[in-house]
Amino acid sequence: MKTILESTVVVVGLGLMGGSLAGALHGKCRKVVGVARRTETINRAVSQGLIDAGTTDIESGLREADTIVLATPVRTIIDLVREIGPLLPKGALLIDLGSTKEEIVGNMSALPTHVQPLGGHPMCGKELSGISVADPHLYLGKTFILVPLPRTTPEAVDLGRDLTRTIGATPLVLDDARRHDFLVGTLSHLPYLLACALVQTADATTSEDPAAWEIVASGFRDTSRVAASAVDMMSDIILTNRNEILGALQEYSSHLSELGQLVKDGDEQEIRQALSYAREKRMEMFP
Amino acid sequence: MKTILESTVVVVGLGLMGGSLAGALHGKCRKVVGVARRTETINRAVSQGLIDAGTTDIESGLREADTIVLATPVRTIIDLVREIGPLLPKGALLIDLGSTKEEIVGNMSALPTHVQPLGGHPMCGKELSGISVADPHLYLGKTFILVPLPRTTPEAVDLGRDLTRTIGATPLVLDDARRHDFLVGTLSHLPYLLACALVQTADATTSEDPAAWEIVASGFRDTSRVAASAVDMMSDIILTNRNEILGALQEYSSHLSELGQLVKDGDEQEIRQALSYAREKRMEMFP
Repeated sequence: MKTILESTVVVVGLGLMGGSLAGALHGKCRKVVGVARRTETINRAVSQGLIDAGTTDIESGLREADTIVLATPVRTIIDLVREIGPLLPKGALLIDLGSTKEEIVGNMSALPTHVQPLGGHPMCGKELSGISVADPHLYLGKTFILVPLPRTTPEAVDLGRDLTRTIGATPLVLDDARRHDFLVGTLSHLPYLLACALVQTADATTSEDPAAWEIVASGFRDTSRVAASAVDMMSDIILTNRNEILGALQEYSSHLSELGQLVKDGDEQEIRQALSYAREKRMEMFP
Repeated sequence: MKTILESTVVVVGLGLMGGSLAGALHGKCRKVVGVARRTETINRAVSQGLIDAGTTDIESGLREADTIVLATPVRTIIDLVREIGPLLPKGALLIDLGSTKEEIVGNMSALPTHVQPLGGHPMCGKELSGISVADPHLYLGKTFILVPLPRTTPEAVDLGRDLTRTIGATPLVLDDARRHDFLVGTLSHLPYLLACALVQTADATTSEDPAAWEIVASGFRDTSRVAASAVDMMSDIILTNRNEILGALQEYSSHLSELGQLVKDGDEQEIRQALSYAREKRMEMFP
């Protein structure tokens, strides 16, 4: 297989994630080609210096591809994986940027054998979306999970590592898509739902007392930030990771109701102990 | 009453909040005096340019005060309010920086009549604490809630406004301490508990699979940040706002369980509708 430096990389979907990845690769591989639904997006990506060329016609876009990156919402990735098999050049690496992996990787297993499939999930993002906020530095220093299939060759996994390092990210190989979905269910999808529920709660408060609008604290700003994430992206994530998210919600709710019981009981020592434990763990996670 | 510019301001408690407030006032009033338990803290505050002078003896510290700011954890504020009445100079303004107001203001009502009491709550903070992270810019652009008592004169409220503007904050007068506690119960104390429960949940996940340590997403970082807040401060807040926090937890839990039901049902339209609503509200709150 060619190295990334020698490759033509085709990025399908030029939103925040795809546009940023294209920009991060631009100049570091033979050619970056963008595929989008609208000509306007292609033109914008070219003028922002994110891609060398672009097309709205996926078939012609894929023709010269060495590596293909699917950067759309999860269920569109699944549709693409099902459809583009016959269009993929021999020996190509197909990778995706979807936030859930079990369904995607499951569908990848049916791809023609002349293609190397590899699940991908970069652990970064913004609450803004679209090509206009694409940022070639988005991936710098971030963890990029790679989920190989049993059929994926070690060379293809190495090429995936090469890709993630080229954009400044750190590869983390997880062999089990379900394990991936369990982990991100707790660490990424759960926080999103918590933020949504928090915003709904604050919304009830602002309806009861408009002064609430003026006293939204910094803690609330941070805790609620991800609730502004793109709905297309998040609804696909939820719909393809329901079981793991439900498990995470159940685990979370039991911790929250224990904390609620401590507040109700009002025992200072027990409250301090629980808060200290959470504080220590948070500091371990983000030293 | 003297203006802040003409006043000697005594700040009791030189942690993050008190040290920052002292530093923000320094040079903008006649004199800033710090009161702390340890001489080391006083020396540090002087060398950081936060105060003109300091003492570990509250009685001597209060002697020349025009305005006194209590900047300790909430239950220490309550103890101080109960104890220092006889030490307060005639005509002095006594204000506090506690995050809950009903108990504090309730105790302020028993102060000698020659003192003007005023509840205060600046809506800012950091997850770090102590004089070493004190920052004179901490209050810039932040909302500073003022809760007058029925006995507080309009002149004293104006002086409170003067103080908050001097440090760069925006005053918001709320006449009802209970209303204050209800609002911050939802907008500040609830997010803290949610972050603690989230950290506990992630802790369970890291115990099950150490790979979790490497894939803590940016969403998790933000959502869990406040869980690292100082335990002394937060346990006092919880212990003095239990009812409002329990109410907020109940409201929150009902929203979260509704979201959980939507995930369980897997109805795309309903999920998109709920996520869109949360996204729009978040964007209204933080345009």
